[in-house]
Amino acid sequence: MGPGPSDVSPRVLKALGQPTIGHLDPAFVGLMDEIKDLLQYVFMTENRLTIPVSAPGSAGMETCFMNMVDPNDHVLVCINGVFGGRMTEVAKRAGAKLTTLEFDWGTEVDPAKVEEALAADDSISMLAFVHAETSTGVRSDAKTLCEIARKHDCLTIVDAVTSLAGIELRVDDWGIDAIYSGTQKCLSCVPGISPVSFSEKAVAKIQSREHTNDSWFLDLKLVMAYWEQSEAQPKRAYHHTAPVNSLYALHESLLMVKEEGLENAWARHAKHHNALVAGLSVLGIELIVAEEYRLPELNTVKIPEGVDDAAVRTALLSQFDLEIGAGLGKFAGNAWRIGLMGSACKRENVELCISALASVLNEQGYDCDGDAAMAAVANSYA
Amino acid sequence: MGPGPSDVSPRVLKALGQPTIGHLDPAFVGLMDEIKDLLQYVFMTENRLTIPVSAPGSAGMETCFMNMVDPNDHVLVCINGVFGGRMTEVAKRAGAKLTTLEFDWGTEVDPAKVEEALAADDSISMLAFVHAETSTGVRSDAKTLCEIARKHDCLTIVDAVTSLAGIELRVDDWGIDAIYSGTQKCLSCVPGISPVSFSEKAVAKIQSREHTNDSWFLDLKLVMAYWEQSEAQPKRAYHHTAPVNSLYALHESLLMVKEEGLENAWARHAKHHNALVAGLSVLGIELIVAEEYRLPELNTVKIPEGVDDAAVRTALLSQFDLEIGAGLGKFAGNAWRIGLMGSACKRENVELCISALASVLNEQGYDCDGDAAMAAVANSYA
Repeated sequence: MGPGPSDVSPRVLKALGQPTIGHLDPAFVGLMDEIKDLLQYVFMTENRLTIPVSAPGSAGMETCFMNMVDPNDHVLVCINGVFGGRMTEVAKRAGAKLTTLEFDWGTEVDPAKVEEALAADDSISMLAFVHAETSTGVRSDAKTLCEIARKHDCLTIVDAVTSLAGIELRVDDWGIDAIYSGTQKCLSCVPGISPVSFSEKAVAKIQSREHTNDSWFLDLKLVMAYWEQSEAQPKRAYHHTAPVNSLYALHESLLMVKEEGLENAWARHAKHHNALVAGLSVLGIELIVAEEYRLPELNTVKIPEGVDDAAVRTALLSQFDLEIGAGLGKFAGNAWRIGLMGSACKRENVELCISALASVLNEQGYDCDGDAAMAAVANSYA
Repeated sequence: MGPGPSDVSPRVLKALGQPTIGHLDPAFVGLMDEIKDLLQYVFMTENRLTIPVSAPGSAGMETCFMNMVDPNDHVLVCINGVFGGRMTEVAKRAGAKLTTLEFDWGTEVDPAKVEEALAADDSISMLAFVHAETSTGVRSDAKTLCEIARKHDCLTIVDAVTSLAGIELRVDDWGIDAIYSGTQKCLSCVPGISPVSFSEKAVAKIQSREHTNDSWFLDLKLVMAYWEQSEAQPKRAYHHTAPVNSLYALHESLLMVKEEGLENAWARHAKHHNALVAGLSVLGIELIVAEEYRLPELNTVKIPEGVDDAAVRTALLSQFDLEIGAGLGKFAGNAWRIGLMGSACKRENVELCISALASVLNEQGYDCDGDAAMAAVANSYA
């Protein structure tokens, strides 16, 4: 129950361990087509360029920036946590002219500030922000932010690493141009792959650019030729050896989301989040993020006064086999991050977390009522 | 029995499918240390910076060039197949000033030509070549090439994707500065990870460079902080989420090499290669590469006159569940590539390949004596 990798279901692990076949085997090519269809489903998009990048979420971020940003393109990056900060680093290396907007940790990207910044400078052609900040547990209003971007003729790059399949995310309806995610959060798949999707407008920009991508490995002009078949290109072209087994696992995890139904998955995350919050509240543990902007899949809480951060996490791990996340960046030492992601988002885990926390906290001299907290959890489900 | 991914042993698949734990879990950190030790063993190096890159071999290539090459560094790239060609593409994007030496497909990189080129131009500071060309089945003499490079004060970048654990490769003895490999060849691990190793000299160059790496994901200055602990940095710093399960698999596959013994693994590849060649020869199928430069793990053969390339490969796959590789690049349509890599390098496979080829070729109207070929195979093992 950390900030990811989340627990991977036995079904996905079983798919992962199937015998490796060739990356150009007809059976594997069929699987690739199914993966693209399933990714379109979870991203809620008809974007043709919707594929898994053969590397972790950070490489997905880099794929977006290195393919979308021409040198001196003026990009506005919103920072309300570690991953917004990382975006600036990656955008800079892609050669972007950079403007940043910073927001307090634990708060959302403020659309009014974004509107103001875009109105003030016509040269900005791209807006980048994090939909679900993994470092703070904050959801920003991607729909509104994309509307504002469109109004100012800006393309959008959106980090959906922790939001995909956990909360509402509609790539086409919201008009997102480039988006990346990870497999190890609400998809509950093994880490190492980054699903990405690009709008027609984004693809047009990529295909017409004159600047050669600094990366060969992440150059979508080349990667597309492996993932796409068309009349112009009837045969897939070898680019790199696909991570065959990880893609088996991704396929299975996407199937599981489709079987449950995307909206049902969102509702499940909300339900267990509410139960967790009810229990935490009785333990006297406060959430850091305002209710409206909380991520149900990642709950950032204040470490109670006088409690030893590392001692509690170590005790949870050794006594209860339970991992919760440490604070990251500015939140290091004063926050915990409790994940309820994908297949780990279930009643047993909420109950385990509340009872284990109560036990360990009492042991550490922080007085709290575990029974009452468990009753609040049960009540939330009633 | 293609050019990779090779067959993954059940033991590695079982390790792969173990429950995912956190990438900062103490148990996982222990596994990382063991992986580094085991990689040092298979690379025959004491290089401290010996780690698996979290992406396929192509990203390993990019890791070497993007970290080693400063803009306008003059690099000599040797091309005797697809992957030497790819090196030029990647080096260019890293900003290298480029000189290339081309060699006929199916022949080795000629040390005399390299010597001549380095002697003729003092400004060249780096030599890059492919130890085992996967597109042609050619081994180049890495030891001699590195000696020449050292004599001319050049650092070396070596592609060992298909050589690692299949043929003799001694990183320290030969003085290789930067080397990358893949997991899906002679390690018989799942594809998606690229082991790399850097000499002290290479690390000094990386650490002292002023140019910011264009890639954040592959920037070793950052990646090192996750993989290394030292007095200066007692705690590992989070960089990206490691591909936890693929690293379980890598760990297991490296253990298997260590259990067998690296030299024994080389000898096994040579033995089964000899048996395969004996059988092929009776079938009238010629190897393209001169004996001295053949890769035992990847046998490139001429498609016999009048035989339909695709029809044979399709029949092998559908009737015998046997994949052999098509020709790549200049060899497309006139060569097959028969892999004997890692755990797929065994007598049963040699026999399957020879008998299946004999059967399918006869079916396709090419007359050959399967029984005699099988006798030659048996004789080779006698």
